[in-house]
Amino acid sequence: MTKRLDGRAPDELRPLELTRDYTTFAAGSVLIRVGRTVVLCTASVADDVPRWMRGTGRGWVTAEYSMLPGASAERVDREAARGRQSGRTQEIQRLIGRSLRAVTDLPAMGEVQITVDCDVLQADGGTRTASVCGGYIALHDACSRLVASGRMRTHPLREAAAAVSVGVVDGEPRLDLAYEEDSRAEVDMNVVMTASGRFVEVQGTAEGEPFARSELDALLELAGVGIGRLLDAQATVLSVPPALRA
Amino acid sequence: MTKRLDGRAPDELRPLELTRDYTTFAAGSVLIRVGRTVVLCTASVADDVPRWMRGTGRGWVTAEYSMLPGASAERVDREAARGRQSGRTQEIQRLIGRSLRAVTDLPAMGEVQITVDCDVLQADGGTRTASVCGGYIALHDACSRLVASGRMRTHPLREAAAAVSVGVVDGEPRLDLAYEEDSRAEVDMNVVMTASGRFVEVQGTAEGEPFARSELDALLELAGVGIGRLLDAQATVLSVPPALRA
Amino acid sequence: MTKRLDGRAPDELRPLELTRDYTTFAAGSVLIRVGRTVVLCTASVADDVPRWMRGTGRGWVTAEYSMLPGASAERVDREAARGRQSGRTQEIQRLIGRSLRAVTDLPAMGEVQITVDCDVLQADGGTRTASVCGGYIALHDACSRLVASGRMRTHPLREAAAAVSVGVVDGEPRLDLAYEEDSRAEVDMNVVMTASGRFVEVQGTAEGEPFARSELDALLELAGVGIGRLLDAQATVLSVPPALRA
Amino acid sequence: MTKRLDGRAPDELRPLELTRDYTTFAAGSVLIRVGRTVVLCTASVADDVPRWMRGTGRGWVTAEYSMLPGASAERVDREAARGRQSGRTQEIQRLIGRSLRAVTDLPAMGEVQITVDCDVLQADGGTRTASVCGGYIALHDACSRLVASGRMRTHPLREAAAAVSVGVVDGEPRLDLAYEEDSRAEVDMNVVMTASGRFVEVQGTAEGEPFARSELDALLELAGVGIGRLLDAQATVLSVPPALRA
Amino acid sequence: MTKRLDGRAPDELRPLELTRDYTTFAAGSVLIRVGRTVVLCTASVADDVPRWMRGTGRGWVTAEYSMLPGASAERVDREAARGRQSGRTQEIQRLIGRSLRAVTDLPAMGEVQITVDCDVLQADGGTRTASVCGGYIALHDACSRLVASGRMRTHPLREAAAAVSVGVVDGEPRLDLAYEEDSRAEVDMNVVMTASGRFVEVQGTAEGEPFARSELDALLELAGVGIGRLLDAQATVLSVPPALRA
Amino acid sequence: MTKRLDGRAPDELRPLELTRDYTTFAAGSVLIRVGRTVVLCTASVADDVPRWMRGTGRGWVTAEYSMLPGASAERVDREAARGRQSGRTQEIQRLIGRSLRAVTDLPAMGEVQITVDCDVLQADGGTRTASVCGGYIALHDACSRLVASGRMRTHPLREAAAAVSVGVVDGEPRLDLAYEEDSRAEVDMNVVMTASGRFVEVQGTAEGEPFARSELDALLELAGVGIGRLLDAQATVLSVPPALRA
Repeated sequence: MTKRLDGRAPDELRPLELTRDYTTFAAGSVLIRVGRTVVLCTASVADDVPRWMRGTGRGWVTAEYSMLPGASAERVDREAARGRQSGRTQEIQRLIGRSLRAVTDLPAMGEVQITVDCDVLQADGGTRTASVCGGYIALHDACSRLVASGRMRTHPLREAAAAVSVGVVDGEPRLDLAYEEDSRAEVDMNVVMTASGRFVEVQGTAEGEPFARSELDALLELAGVGIGRLLDAQATVLSVPPALRA
Repeated sequence: MTKRLDGRAPDELRPLELTRDYTTFAAGSVLIRVGRTVVLCTASVADDVPRWMRGTGRGWVTAEYSMLPGASAERVDREAARGRQSGRTQEIQRLIGRSLRAVTDLPAMGEVQITVDCDVLQADGGTRTASVCGGYIALHDACSRLVASGRMRTHPLREAAAAVSVGVVDGEPRLDLAYEEDSRAEVDMNVVMTASGRFVEVQGTAEGEPFARSELDALLELAGVGIGRLLDAQATVLSVPPALRA
Repeated sequence: MTKRLDGRAPDELRPLELTRDYTTFAAGSVLIRVGRTVVLCTASVADDVPRWMRGTGRGWVTAEYSMLPGASAERVDREAARGRQSGRTQEIQRLIGRSLRAVTDLPAMGEVQITVDCDVLQADGGTRTASVCGGYIALHDACSRLVASGRMRTHPLREAAAAVSVGVVDGEPRLDLAYEEDSRAEVDMNVVMTASGRFVEVQGTAEGEPFARSELDALLELAGVGIGRLLDAQATVLSVPPALRA
Repeated sequence: MTKRLDGRAPDELRPLELTRDYTTFAAGSVLIRVGRTVVLCTASVADDVPRWMRGTGRGWVTAEYSMLPGASAERVDREAARGRQSGRTQEIQRLIGRSLRAVTDLPAMGEVQITVDCDVLQADGGTRTASVCGGYIALHDACSRLVASGRMRTHPLREAAAAVSVGVVDGEPRLDLAYEEDSRAEVDMNVVMTASGRFVEVQGTAEGEPFARSELDALLELAGVGIGRLLDAQATVLSVPPALRA
Repeated sequence: MTKRLDGRAPDELRPLELTRDYTTFAAGSVLIRVGRTVVLCTASVADDVPRWMRGTGRGWVTAEYSMLPGASAERVDREAARGRQSGRTQEIQRLIGRSLRAVTDLPAMGEVQITVDCDVLQADGGTRTASVCGGYIALHDACSRLVASGRMRTHPLREAAAAVSVGVVDGEPRLDLAYEEDSRAEVDMNVVMTASGRFVEVQGTAEGEPFARSELDALLELAGVGIGRLLDAQATVLSVPPALRA
Repeated sequence: MTKRLDGRAPDELRPLELTRDYTTFAAGSVLIRVGRTVVLCTASVADDVPRWMRGTGRGWVTAEYSMLPGASAERVDREAARGRQSGRTQEIQRLIGRSLRAVTDLPAMGEVQITVDCDVLQADGGTRTASVCGGYIALHDACSRLVASGRMRTHPLREAAAAVSVGVVDGEPRLDLAYEEDSRAEVDMNVVMTASGRFVEVQGTAEGEPFARSELDALLELAGVGIGRLLDAQATVLSVPPALRA
């Protein structure tokens, strides 16, 4: 069994750091660091829901994702300059949005829209799963503040959600792939789970060879272990209510 | 257990019809009908690979997907008129492309690009999985003709791939969802597998409630059953070589 | 006088095949085959007219046109991927729309918009004129169904319209040009006429040398002959009312 | 027979004014006034032909058309601000380009591209036909200067081309429609002809009722009369060679 | 001290020509010639203000700017064809709009929007400052006509505004740079001032070496001199009210 | 004289914090905090210069600017999602790029392009001037690393550049406006200066009333004071060479 480049055990997460209220203008704001991956997640509240939802009394949660051009060693073109979001970007932001909505009681929100923006300041693999983990806290804080200020009657988040990537690298199932591993993984899987141990999203892709059912099972187990630890870290942060704002 | 609207058993596929060489200008062309879903899959050959692959000696397979505006009861806006492809479209065409590349020996192609276009003439659920099934045959025929004409030395497809949707509807795991079922499924999953019984893609999403590991297992089993039958139908068509062209 | 590549006489149409209700979700749907040219025409109904027509009590008929990327031997780029419709596409869809509106009693429609989508599955010349011929039947069927269901009071189509291309090839006026002829025609003309023998559109273009009045007259005569036969084929289809829908 | 709003006879052109070298940086520049319609036509020379023509030794003539936002009483949106050219704009610029190429000996140009820009400063009907008339002179002057400076060996324009609109208004065939007439014409036709009396383009459209062959014939005759006068005016300007440039 | 290419003294403006009502459909229309620079400025009136201003009772003045492709010796790409306005274009039109709004009493306008379009017919330096000078008169005339017709109660322009470019060329501060000077200026500054001698905009840029405070002072003085003369020319035109329209 | 909202004296800067190597993948990376404004500036190196510079042996420095959607209390639309950069964004990034190039010896760079990306994490006024200040250090570090690794022969930055905003608020000239002041300033000015006390950019705009020469002078003086302090802070950071990279 090959050693991982950063010396981690196969079922070990990278160091995790959650900075709450990294910025203070958005209703919720979390800077999440997972190893060298850094994502700023903000949750912004608008009184307006999308046109097709007006009058339903229900709220909406949506997400947007972007990578800053200088986030990786080789600069990536700015999507605003190119004039369109890539398929990858859209796929990722749809995943984040679905994951957060799966644990949100939309009718309990009232006609409010919360947009969770996940902007990657540095990218070293696992940016979409970090976005789910950080985005969940930003969304939770935004809702807590809406409840505290009386704009929302009950807190609409039903349970916590967290996400992690797993993959088969050098024939070995591994947890929380860094970019170097991700880029040469034989199988790559992103898993989103809830505090109750159920699945929100399972997205597995054979990058090289198709994979067997036994590999799938091993990866799902590994993901469960990692997500359990991530949920713990989220819970620690959220055990203290966010500072109130004027 | 509720009856399915079209009377099928939970593990029953819709009627499948594969029309080979539905059109004759593209190198491969297959019209696939799965119940009322109709997709035209064509495979077009170009001597030019994408810029980043030039000089590598390897080939490339890519896919594009679109829904004709009149494909559904409520007309959908034409993406060319709106000026951009939706996130859903890009997500789907990336899935089709990855699935086909997973069973293709790209170096064996030489520097040739094959584009598989999947245009949905009528949409009643399962358009992306039908695209994979039909696209595989169109790609196979295009390669067979390239081999026959001497432009390719060996046939680059290593094994067959097929795809199916499964989901939990009314609490029951079901195979091959039609639109009416898909739109109210609690869990929705697309699975792509190979003839050797391995996975290429597993994409499961909780539409309402998160789902348990036992549900995931039941759906994967159902998918395996359906894909087996689809692979048989593909094999029947491909047991006869395609007509040669001038 | 040179023989035509497919052996036709100069005033002979290619074989014509009209498949009614090729798809069944759109209000009208016709697959038209003219030789190797194949176009799927669907007519979709919306209760909403364009903004500038609201409150006028009048309806609107518009058309959109597209060529599937695999429709020709050399794949054409997908306009949705390029992000804009070409000038050729826009010119063609404007022509189809004007032609259908010219035989429609818009006030008789009430405030309803019908969009006729013409998607070319295979292109061998004459795609825009085939679109007019097939689109007319799809529009007629959509209106018949609206009348049958009581959503429209009277059938708004005043008379039939059909279209054909004519051109001078190898110095000879010819009817219904296939791609090979079209691409080297000295003069190229598209003519749209009604059942009463009048003109809706006459669009003649000198591709090489400018053309004389006598050539123009010969082409208009040829067009009249061809359109007469196309109108007969349309009438045969429409002599039976379309199947009613639930 | 109703009187025309500006008192003209049915077969009378509006006053025509051609200002040569209205601007002096472009290789050819003509301001054409037809009644209140004002178009600035410039011809710019580039040593580069489009990619698909490189190495053929042939030149290319293309045209672009635009209406300034303040050209009409009701301001029209700027296409650069909207981010796309309308179908109407593209249709018109394709017509102008085809018309000018029809009288140009492209191989005689050598590998040079001339772009004729037609920008409408004020629009009162007939802007596309004025663009052909003015554009022809601008193109001719640009070529004359290229010949004079030795960059082109022979003048590539084979014969003159001019264009005019005709139409049926209040049941009467009329020459050179102003906007007020154009907007309520029953039939609208644009005709481009050469000095040798042959046709380059004939584009007739029934705006309301379809039109009979006899109406078509009357309009073509009227167009011939008008174009004869326009060709005379062009010839008068071109009888003097353009001023040479440093 | 080097002589300027066109023989002017360092503090001398180029010949100025203002043609009022160059076109007659827009509410205000001025053709301004500054040396070889030619800009057509039109002011169009709409009863609708931007969405964010509705109900405020205030009016709005905005500007758009464009260069015709044939305006310079080397043809510039048409922004409508490229599908986006350049950063330079947007910067210029924002400057023109701000300058005109700075001397307009927006509440006095009522809920009316006036768009000043500045289209450069020929570009030889100073196109943005010529646009401000000509645009001011076009805007003034449009307002005068609105007042005359009773659509506006009081004339909303509080005082005149004019603009000029200044720069350091060959080490010498110069007024009103032509393109040849502008392209090699060490410092380039655009200044917009009012009749009361105050500043609306000061935009100075070091093109090569950073510049000293003394240079800045010299340039501001020169600008004041030039703007004084431009204001005189504007006043002469506006001393006569514009012709009334039907 | 009114007190400033945050208690500062009129000539007082907000607290400044410069975090070098905030991220570590880009060649230079600086997080700058000016009060509550936070901008991440990264400098990325590419071996390729823009097409029009190839073969000149000179390098190029360019800048891009963006505001994260959650950077302000009211979420701003993501430009990548809207498909175009606003005029404001383009104006700002052009200013940053010009400012940095003004102190760079481009020929000394060799054919290398450095892109300075300035992404605003939180916006409280002065984002463009903070971008210049932080961007200068990021650019300096990137160059230092290129010199250290031998890819650049001499350090191309000739002297430091810094920027600050000044304005007239409540009739009083003030240094370094926060958003609340900026939004109601009568005059708004951005000034970029060098360590040698010379000007790179002076951009003053009357937001309400035009301003007098005396106000301009007072603002320039205030800017000089502030920029002096900013240059000191930059110098302190740069007095230590950046950490070398593998």
